[in-house]
Amino acid sequence: MKPLFFALALVGAPVFADPLPSWNDTDAKSRIISFVETVTNPESADYVTPAARVATFDNDGTLWAEQPVYFQLIYAVDQVAKMGAADPSILISDALKAAAAKDYKALLETGEAGLIEVLRASHADMSLDQFQAEVAAWLDDARHPTTGMRYDDMIYQPMLELLRYLRDEGFATYIVSGGGIDFIRVFAEEAYGIPPEQVIGSSIVSSYEVVDGVPQIIKGADLFFVDDKAGKPVGIMHHIGRRPILAGGNSDGDFEMLEFTTAGEGARLGLLVHHTDAEREFAYDREGHIGVLNRGQDEGPERGWIIVDMAQDWRTVFASNAR
Amino acid sequence: MKPLFFALALVGAPVFADPLPSWNDTDAKSRIISFVETVTNPESADYVTPAARVATFDNDGTLWAEQPVYFQLIYAVDQVAKMGAADPSILISDALKAAAAKDYKALLETGEAGLIEVLRASHADMSLDQFQAEVAAWLDDARHPTTGMRYDDMIYQPMLELLRYLRDEGFATYIVSGGGIDFIRVFAEEAYGIPPEQVIGSSIVSSYEVVDGVPQIIKGADLFFVDDKAGKPVGIMHHIGRRPILAGGNSDGDFEMLEFTTAGEGARLGLLVHHTDAEREFAYDREGHIGVLNRGQDEGPERGWIIVDMAQDWRTVFASNAR
Repeated sequence: MKPLFFALALVGAPVFADPLPSWNDTDAKSRIISFVETVTNPESADYVTPAARVATFDNDGTLWAEQPVYFQLIYAVDQVAKMGAADPSILISDALKAAAAKDYKALLETGEAGLIEVLRASHADMSLDQFQAEVAAWLDDARHPTTGMRYDDMIYQPMLELLRYLRDEGFATYIVSGGGIDFIRVFAEEAYGIPPEQVIGSSIVSSYEVVDGVPQIIKGADLFFVDDKAGKPVGIMHHIGRRPILAGGNSDGDFEMLEFTTAGEGARLGLLVHHTDAEREFAYDREGHIGVLNRGQDEGPERGWIIVDMAQDWRTVFASNAR
Repeated sequence: MKPLFFALALVGAPVFADPLPSWNDTDAKSRIISFVETVTNPESADYVTPAARVATFDNDGTLWAEQPVYFQLIYAVDQVAKMGAADPSILISDALKAAAAKDYKALLETGEAGLIEVLRASHADMSLDQFQAEVAAWLDDARHPTTGMRYDDMIYQPMLELLRYLRDEGFATYIVSGGGIDFIRVFAEEAYGIPPEQVIGSSIVSSYEVVDGVPQIIKGADLFFVDDKAGKPVGIMHHIGRRPILAGGNSDGDFEMLEFTTAGEGARLGLLVHHTDAEREFAYDREGHIGVLNRGQDEGPERGWIIVDMAQDWRTVFASNAR
């Protein structure tokens, strides 16, 4: 009876299943698993109760791609182009005209003021419901310029596995993004299994109004909160009210989030996705206008953060369930 | 066999346990139970999936008492008195002097500017950790002027039962308070079983700073968000990102939250606690400086909201586990 019982036990034992099959068997993977096993082991001195197992992740460049520009900016440009085609009289500035022509080079030359103008035209002075319906429709139609994929399919399979593994081990998984909170909430639940209440991001001031008897949230034009750099720990403590024990990012915009997370007592894990794979994704780090990673590369290793080398550590890049 | 089996089934059947034992068998109780049974019944046309079972509750006057003044104001006054005793030179205004003397009448006469000054002196320009440690110490020491109870014991047993009942039925229970988010988080988990990430409230601007190598959140002096009246639906959509199906309050500061909640499609429940019990708690509604309830009384019934009559509907008032 004993050998049979043992064999049956093996069949059902989740401990023998690989929780991260899309990660190669490198140091990064073993350190992640070792961390999770430590904080979930009641016998460990570093055991963490389930309620305190909070993990926060950047979105752009960490959970989904961010090249050639942030996808939310592509949404803004596409919206202005659509609005301009319907009514060219709204294109009252160089920035709006550049956006309507989908001329990113000319748009970037209009500087921050021009970008804000394009973001306002596509994000502000409308109901939250309308905005989110527009984003959902755009996600259905739009395709990435080089991969031809849906934007919400350009999500990283190894990170999906990490999110699921953490949740299976009792963690709450949050997005903490410099991108727009209302934008990310449109796809985060389906794409990552992360519900709206676990999405933290940048936002504009909104108001509550009853319009023709219908109560609704109206997105205004002024900035409310910038959830980037030092704003990330602030956003975390505002929304969650407790310090994460694990944080993942990919750029220096995530530095403070990882610093705040790993400065806490007990076992902590910081993780930076390093974009090293020009063949399967994009290769970039110290220079450019997106996802710049200098301080994280320079100080991360000595702070004990895992620098994930996409080319070396990931067996696959994009989600296997891509449509 | 059949009668025995039936009897055994009855013994184990939770449906026969009263989920709200501190509620009298009045209309309010039966309407609450009927609502919960409807939205959790997969056979019902008004069935709601667990993820969408969001319930939001005001705190002051809804989950705990709020007389003779908001307890957070008592905290502020007690802190200024403590600081003034240690260093009288900080008492540079009439408002601070009135607070140091615990003279509420004189303090209220200094108007909103005076109150803000006292709130700033007790809430601003310190680390979040320090603030929350001070609040915890105060809760341990301070006692209510008329009941002699700990403030965090002056919580309503019927509402505790309602929170627990909702959670047992798959709801997420949130606090949505005009009071301070950082203040409420100190006691909400122990008092109500509501964790910090499910507390929404008013806040001041905070920042992230590394002080002597220690990363921390610093509470500044400027207002960030007022989570009252029309701010409540805004705060809800900012933090949760979905409309509640049940909302409970006690004053006109909760009107918009109930309006927004009950305007959604499908079964919805709005509930207002009406303070009618001078003997066991306090009786107040249309007049005064705290918990004024006019519009809710006038329009609530026709909107289908339950007006809970404390004296009639509640068998007990304060929590039975009071220390």
